[in-house]
Amino acid sequence: MEPLDVRRAGAWLATAVEEARAGLAEGGIPIGAALYGADGTLLGRGHNRRVQDGDPTMHAETAAFRAAGRRPGYRGTTMVTTLSPCWYCSGLVRQFGISRVVVGEAVTFHGGHDWLAAHGVEVVLLEDAECTALMRDFIEANPALWNEDIGE
Amino acid sequence: MEPLDVRRAGAWLATAVEEARAGLAEGGIPIGAALYGADGTLLGRGHNRRVQDGDPTMHAETAAFRAAGRRPGYRGTTMVTTLSPCWYCSGLVRQFGISRVVVGEAVTFHGGHDWLAAHGVEVVLLEDAECTALMRDFIEANPALWNEDIGE
Repeated sequence: MEPLDVRRAGAWLATAVEEARAGLAEGGIPIGAALYGADGTLLGRGHNRRVQDGDPTMHAETAAFRAAGRRPGYRGTTMVTTLSPCWYCSGLVRQFGISRVVVGEAVTFHGGHDWLAAHGVEVVLLEDAECTALMRDFIEANPALWNEDIGE
Repeated sequence: MEPLDVRRAGAWLATAVEEARAGLAEGGIPIGAALYGADGTLLGRGHNRRVQDGDPTMHAETAAFRAAGRRPGYRGTTMVTTLSPCWYCSGLVRQFGISRVVVGEAVTFHGGHDWLAAHGVEVVLLEDAECTALMRDFIEANPALWNEDIGE
């Protein structure tokens, strides 16, 4: 796989951040994600919808993956997410052979991105201030909801 | 947590098998699951709906977890599944702190149940002939669909 261009990574992260902001505007948890194909095509995008749909499975990465529909394979695809993926969404990436994960931040939550890297997934960990601020503010204002979302 | 009674395990597995059969009757992949509370209450049940809903996230365990709705925690709960959980559904169990997993069979697919056991989840691995036959027949007749479901 070609190395990821920094500008492309930034543009892809912007899609995930838009999703996170949309979720926040709906009263939800501000985590967004998008799945891109090997050629840069946007395959699916989504955000956490625990609150909006009353659905505990609708983490951002799962929502983006679902939006991409049924596919014969995921080789060369990239999952971009505003936050380090939890075990559930890390498992998704590993099971379906998604090749790369771009993570907006892992400061407010350290998920399974190291595990993914150890199992052959290319992990690009950004230190995006907006992603961090979105989650930090949200967790401070809604600690119980956040703990529910990660099963703590 | 109390040790799981064999008859209870059998009754719970029967629910998951009913789900798997229902999925097969709908033209879907015959994997079923159910989430039970610490007191034995059925919290949610479901089956794989990749084909039925065109939704690649609807693995059986995810469907059962979703059907159980939003919950503050999963301590003491048991996920019963006809088939060893893939990485995605194993990640679900680990992330949300589901205490126990009852697996119908791990012959046709060896998922993440060892990993779960290594991380403190109680794993009860049954060797259920009906679960194995359901999947063996299905995989033989639909290899491409099965490979799609596990990202291979």
